[in-house]
Amino acid sequence: MAAQSRLTGIFTPNLVPLDSQGEINEPELRKYVDWLIDRGVHGLYPNGSTGEFTRFTVEERRRIIEIVVDQSRGRVPVLAGAAEANTRETIRACEYYHELGARAVAIVAPFYYKLSPASVYAYFAEIGRNTPIDVTLYNIPLFASPIDVPTVQKLADNFEKIVAIKDSSGDIPHMIRMIKAVRPNRPEFSFLTGWDAALMPLLLIGADGGTNATSGVVPEITRRLFDLTTAGKLDEARKVQYDLVTLFDTMIYSAEFPEGFRAAVNLRGFNMGTGRQPLSPEQKTDIAALSKTLQCLLAEQGFTDQPVGGCPISKSAPVDRTEIESIVQNVLAELKHRGLA
Amino acid sequence: MAAQSRLTGIFTPNLVPLDSQGEINEPELRKYVDWLIDRGVHGLYPNGSTGEFTRFTVEERRRIIEIVVDQSRGRVPVLAGAAEANTRETIRACEYYHELGARAVAIVAPFYYKLSPASVYAYFAEIGRNTPIDVTLYNIPLFASPIDVPTVQKLADNFEKIVAIKDSSGDIPHMIRMIKAVRPNRPEFSFLTGWDAALMPLLLIGADGGTNATSGVVPEITRRLFDLTTAGKLDEARKVQYDLVTLFDTMIYSAEFPEGFRAAVNLRGFNMGTGRQPLSPEQKTDIAALSKTLQCLLAEQGFTDQPVGGCPISKSAPVDRTEIESIVQNVLAELKHRGLA
Amino acid sequence: MAAQSRLTGIFTPNLVPLDSQGEINEPELRKYVDWLIDRGVHGLYPNGSTGEFTRFTVEERRRIIEIVVDQSRGRVPVLAGAAEANTRETIRACEYYHELGARAVAIVAPFYYKLSPASVYAYFAEIGRNTPIDVTLYNIPLFASPIDVPTVQKLADNFEKIVAIKDSSGDIPHMIRMIKAVRPNRPEFSFLTGWDAALMPLLLIGADGGTNATSGVVPEITRRLFDLTTAGKLDEARKVQYDLVTLFDTMIYSAEFPEGFRAAVNLRGFNMGTGRQPLSPEQKTDIAALSKTLQCLLAEQGFTDQPVGGCPISKSAPVDRTEIESIVQNVLAELKHRGLA
Amino acid sequence: MAAQSRLTGIFTPNLVPLDSQGEINEPELRKYVDWLIDRGVHGLYPNGSTGEFTRFTVEERRRIIEIVVDQSRGRVPVLAGAAEANTRETIRACEYYHELGARAVAIVAPFYYKLSPASVYAYFAEIGRNTPIDVTLYNIPLFASPIDVPTVQKLADNFEKIVAIKDSSGDIPHMIRMIKAVRPNRPEFSFLTGWDAALMPLLLIGADGGTNATSGVVPEITRRLFDLTTAGKLDEARKVQYDLVTLFDTMIYSAEFPEGFRAAVNLRGFNMGTGRQPLSPEQKTDIAALSKTLQCLLAEQGFTDQPVGGCPISKSAPVDRTEIESIVQNVLAELKHRGLA
Repeated sequence: MAAQSRLTGIFTPNLVPLDSQGEINEPELRKYVDWLIDRGVHGLYPNGSTGEFTRFTVEERRRIIEIVVDQSRGRVPVLAGAAEANTRETIRACEYYHELGARAVAIVAPFYYKLSPASVYAYFAEIGRNTPIDVTLYNIPLFASPIDVPTVQKLADNFEKIVAIKDSSGDIPHMIRMIKAVRPNRPEFSFLTGWDAALMPLLLIGADGGTNATSGVVPEITRRLFDLTTAGKLDEARKVQYDLVTLFDTMIYSAEFPEGFRAAVNLRGFNMGTGRQPLSPEQKTDIAALSKTLQCLLAEQGFTDQPVGGCPISKSAPVDRTEIESIVQNVLAELKHRGLA
Repeated sequence: MAAQSRLTGIFTPNLVPLDSQGEINEPELRKYVDWLIDRGVHGLYPNGSTGEFTRFTVEERRRIIEIVVDQSRGRVPVLAGAAEANTRETIRACEYYHELGARAVAIVAPFYYKLSPASVYAYFAEIGRNTPIDVTLYNIPLFASPIDVPTVQKLADNFEKIVAIKDSSGDIPHMIRMIKAVRPNRPEFSFLTGWDAALMPLLLIGADGGTNATSGVVPEITRRLFDLTTAGKLDEARKVQYDLVTLFDTMIYSAEFPEGFRAAVNLRGFNMGTGRQPLSPEQKTDIAALSKTLQCLLAEQGFTDQPVGGCPISKSAPVDRTEIESIVQNVLAELKHRGLA
Repeated sequence: MAAQSRLTGIFTPNLVPLDSQGEINEPELRKYVDWLIDRGVHGLYPNGSTGEFTRFTVEERRRIIEIVVDQSRGRVPVLAGAAEANTRETIRACEYYHELGARAVAIVAPFYYKLSPASVYAYFAEIGRNTPIDVTLYNIPLFASPIDVPTVQKLADNFEKIVAIKDSSGDIPHMIRMIKAVRPNRPEFSFLTGWDAALMPLLLIGADGGTNATSGVVPEITRRLFDLTTAGKLDEARKVQYDLVTLFDTMIYSAEFPEGFRAAVNLRGFNMGTGRQPLSPEQKTDIAALSKTLQCLLAEQGFTDQPVGGCPISKSAPVDRTEIESIVQNVLAELKHRGLA
Repeated sequence: MAAQSRLTGIFTPNLVPLDSQGEINEPELRKYVDWLIDRGVHGLYPNGSTGEFTRFTVEERRRIIEIVVDQSRGRVPVLAGAAEANTRETIRACEYYHELGARAVAIVAPFYYKLSPASVYAYFAEIGRNTPIDVTLYNIPLFASPIDVPTVQKLADNFEKIVAIKDSSGDIPHMIRMIKAVRPNRPEFSFLTGWDAALMPLLLIGADGGTNATSGVVPEITRRLFDLTTAGKLDEARKVQYDLVTLFDTMIYSAEFPEGFRAAVNLRGFNMGTGRQPLSPEQKTDIAALSKTLQCLLAEQGFTDQPVGGCPISKSAPVDRTEIESIVQNVLAELKHRGLA
C-alpha cells in the first residue's frame, strides 16, 4: 500500500440523527454528510465523542461507519472511531473499517478505569502491532486515561501505523511538547486538536488541523478560521476565533454535552431527533432557551433567520456579555468540579 | 411479588477467571463461586468494577451472570451488574437478570461523559420506571458521574424498585448525609460501601454492608470484620480493620486495578488467567514482586505458605512500614493526578 | 521539664472578636475564653484557620496568644498557632509562646507555594530541631501543602518535640495509615481531627480528639459527642454526630468560611464584629438569612430562642431536607471546583 | 497626574539575592536590576511569586521595593507586588509604593482561604476604591483564589485605578474570554501572562505582554520572543518559543519553585544565596545536577560556558528528549496531584 498523505485540516466529529423510535436515521445522516462535504470540511469523523459512540451498540457503531463511508464516496477521507471493549474487539473494528475504505481510525485511550502511562502504552502497542489501517491516538483527559508525551513519542517511534494524535486537552504547552518529542523521528506525524476555543493559536504553534465539533454546526466558519490562520491573515483570523469562542462556549457549556450541538444542527435545517441520554423536563426547557440564543448567534452570521420575537439589539452590550460570561464561568466551575476541566 | 428483605452484609464483587485463550473460564468461575459461598460471603456481585465489566462484550456479561446465578443455586443472593450502552439496553439487561433469578441489579451512573445531577436523575428515573427487578444505584465518582445526595433522595422517594445504593467514595460524612436524607421516607433502603479501608467506621455510622473487593481474596477476614463490628466488639474489629487496610492498600495501589486482586486470588488456589488489559513487561515483573508481598501478608494470616525464600521477619518494623506507606502515598498521588482519588 | 501528657479531647479553634474599628476586641475575647472553658472544652487553639490567623499582622497574632493564655489562667491547655513567614520567624514565635506558657504550638504546613513532601519534611525538621515548645503538625490539604504519611512518620521518629498532628482532611483511611505508621515508635503521639463531620468515627478508629470549629459555637454538643463516643455509647453518639453534621454543614457551606461560625457565635450572645475579609451586599444578606436558619437549629437544641417569626415546624420534613442537602451539595461542588474538597 | 500608558512588554518578576546570613543582599540586588535593564526587559516586578514575597516580612517586602525603585532610576517602570495580610494593610502598601514612585502595584487574589468570586470582587473593590496607585490584578489559580472573567469585567468597569491583569493560568480560551469581556469598555486595559510556555500564542491572540520568570534568567531570549512575535515573524518566533519551553520546563519542573530559577540566575554570574525554604540533602544534590543541565542549555544559547565534563552532544537526540519529557511529565503529574496544574 502506498504511503498516505498526512492528516490535515478540519475533520468533523459528526452527530448521528435519530428517528422517532430512537434508531439511526439513515436518510438524514446521508443528507448531513453531503451538506458537511459541500461546505468544505476536509474530512469526517464518525463515532467520536460528539457522535456519542458509547451510547450505541457494537452493531450500530459499525452501521454508522458503513453509512458515512458509503455516502462520502471518496470525496473526503473518513476517520472512523474504533474503540471497543478490549483490544481484540478494537482490532476487529480496525479490520472492518479498513475493508470499508476508511482513511484511518481514531481510538480513544481506555476509559472508566483510569490507567497508568505504561498500561496506555501497552494498550496502543497491542493495537499498533495488529492494525491493518492507520491509527490516530485520541487523547481526551476529561473523559479517558491521559496519553502523556513520552507515551505518544514511544508509540510514534515504534509503530508506523500510528500516524496521528487528536488531542482535546486544549493545552498549548502540551501540544508544543508533543510536537517537539515526535516530529524529529516522525516528520509526517499529524497533530490534531479537538478544542475549538484554541484552534487558531494551536495551528500557529504547529498543529495540522482539528476535529472540531463546531465544524458540524458552522462548517463555513471553522473552515474559514483554518484557512485564514494557515494563510497568515492573523487579524482576520483572530476576529473569527473570538466569535467561535462565543459560539463554542454557548453550545458546550449551556447544556449537557453534546445537546447544545444537537440543538444547533437542528437550526441548520436537520432533524437530529432526541438524544439517547434521558433529560429532565427542566433540561428540555433549557435547551429550548439555548436554541433561541444559538439562533441569534447563527443569524448574526447569516446562517439562519432570527427567531420569532427577535434577538437582543447588540450582542456586545456589556450587560449581556456579563451574563453570558457568568454562565460560562459557572458551567466551567461545575465542569471542573466534576473533573472535566 | 412479596417484599424482599433489605440488602445487608458482604457482597463479593468477583473477578472472572479467564482461560489461556482469554475466554471466560467457566469451570474455574463455578469453583470460585462455591469457595466464596463456603467462606461466608453474604452475596455475590458479578459484573462490578472488580469484575472488569467494561472489558467484556454484551454477550459475555450475560454469560457471567448466567453462570454465577446458576452456580450459587439460591444459597446467597446475586446482585448483577447491569449497566449497558443506554437505558434501553440496560432495561433489557434488568429484564433478563430478573428472569434468571438474580436478587437485584446494580447499575453504575453513566460514565465517559460526566453528567450533571439532573441527567443522572433522568437516567435512573427512566430505569426505575421500567425495571422489573430491584435496583441498587452504584456511585463511584472516581470512574463515573457522581450521584449526589439530593439525587439519591429523589430516586429513593419516587421509585420503590430502587432499593439500595453502593457508594465507593469512602467519604463518611457523605454516607451520613445520604442516610439522613433517605431513611425517613425509606427505612428499608440499604446503604452499602465499596471502600474496604473504611468498612468498620461506615458500619458504625449506619451502613448496612459492603461490596468489598477484599472479600474476593480473604472472605474470611472481610466477613469477620463485619461480624465483629456489628457485634460491637470494637477493639477486635479495629485490629482487623487496620490489617485490612494494609492488605487493601497493597492490592489496590501496587498494580493497575484490579491486577493486585487477581494476583491475590491466584494465591488462594485459583487460576485467574491473564487480564484483558495488556501489560508491559515491567508491569508483569512488578506483579510478580507484588505477588510475593501478598503471599507474605496472606501467610501471616494463615491463608497460604510463605513464598520460597521466606518473608521479612516482622511486617511491623518501622522501616518496612515507611517503605510501604511511601509506595501507598506515591500511588495515591498518582491516582489523584489521574483524577482517581 | 517533665514529660507532658498527651494532647487529648476537644481544643476549640476560637474566632477573634473585633470591635467597630476592626481591631481585636480584648474584653469580648476574654469573655469568650471564659465561656468556652465553662462549657467544658478541653483546650483552646487560637490562631487556627477558624481564627483567621492570616488576616492579622504579626503583632496582632502575638497579642491574641497573650490574651488567650492570660485569660485561661491554666484552667485548660493552650495550643498556639505559630506559623509565620519563614522558619526563622516561626521559631521566634515558638520561643515567645513557650515563654508565655502555652502548652504547645500548632504549625500549618507551608502554604501559597505547594511544596513536595521532601520540602515539607525539611521545613518541620528545621523547626523540630530548634523549638523549645511541643509542636503539633497541622495538615490541611485544602489550604496548605499536604503532610503525607511517611513525612509524619519520619518527623515523629526524629523529633521528640513534635508530639501531635491535627489533620483536617477528614479522610479516615488516611488517619488509620498515620496511626499505624507512627504509634509503634511514638505511643504517646497524639492524633487530632479538624473535621467535625467525622469526629465520632475518627475517635472510634483511634484518634485522640479534635480541634473542631463547632466547639466554638456549641461546645456543649461537641464535648458531649466526645464523651459519648469515648464511653462507647454508640447509639446516642450516632444521633449527636448526625445532628452535628447538619449544624456543621450549615455553618461551613452556607457562607464564606468562617463567616457562618461568626454568625453562630453571635447567636450565643457574643459580639464578634465584622470580619476583615470584605463582603458584598448580597453576601451580607445571605448571612442574615443563614443566621435565622442557625438560630432555629440552635433553638432546637435549647441554646437560643427561636427567631422572630418562628421556625419551620419540623426540620425533618423531607422537602426541607432536600433543600438543605441540595444547598450543601452545591456548595460542596463549588468547593471542589476551587480545589477545596 | 496625567494618564499613564498601557502596561506592555516583558516585566521581570525578579528573585531577591540573599547573603550568607539569609538577609537581603542589597548590592547584588542592585547589580541584578542593572543587568536586567541592560538586557532589555521592559519593566521590573519585585515581590511576585518568583520573588518569594510570602517568605519575607512586611519590612523586608518594603525594603525590596525601595531598592528596586531606587536602582531602576526611572529607566523602566516598576510593578510592585503589594499584597499584605488584609485590605487595610494592602492599601497602606499601595500608598507607600505610590510615594516611592512605582508605576503600579500587582495584587494577588486572597490566598490560604479559597474565596468565592463575590468575595474576590469585594476584596479588590475595597482596594480599588482606596488606592492612589494603578493596580494590576494577579490571577494565579494554582496558588490563590481564582479571579474569574465576570469578576475581572466588573472590576475593570467600576474602578479606573484597576488597569491590568496578570494571568498565570496559561489558559488561552480564558485569556480570549477576558479580553472580549473587558476591552469594549476599557480599551486601554492591559493583559499580561505569567506562563512563559505559551507566551507567543497568548501575544498572538491579544495579550499585551508578560511577567515571565524566564526573563530573569535569559532576558535576551524572552525579549526576543516578544519582539519576533509582535513583529509577525512567526517562523522564527515559533523556534524561540519551542526552545523557551525546554528551558522553562527544566527550571520549573526539576526543583521546588523557584529553586530552578535561582540556580539558573547563579549561572548568569550572580550570587543569589540560599533560599529561605529549607531543602533536604537530596534536594540540594538534585539542584546541583539540575544546574549542570541548565548550564548546558544556556551554553547552547551562548550565555555560559559548558560545565566541566561537557554536555551531551545534541539535545535533540530522541533518547534524551524522552528522558526530559518523562521528567517533565512526572513532575506535571506530581503538580497536578498537589492541585498545582
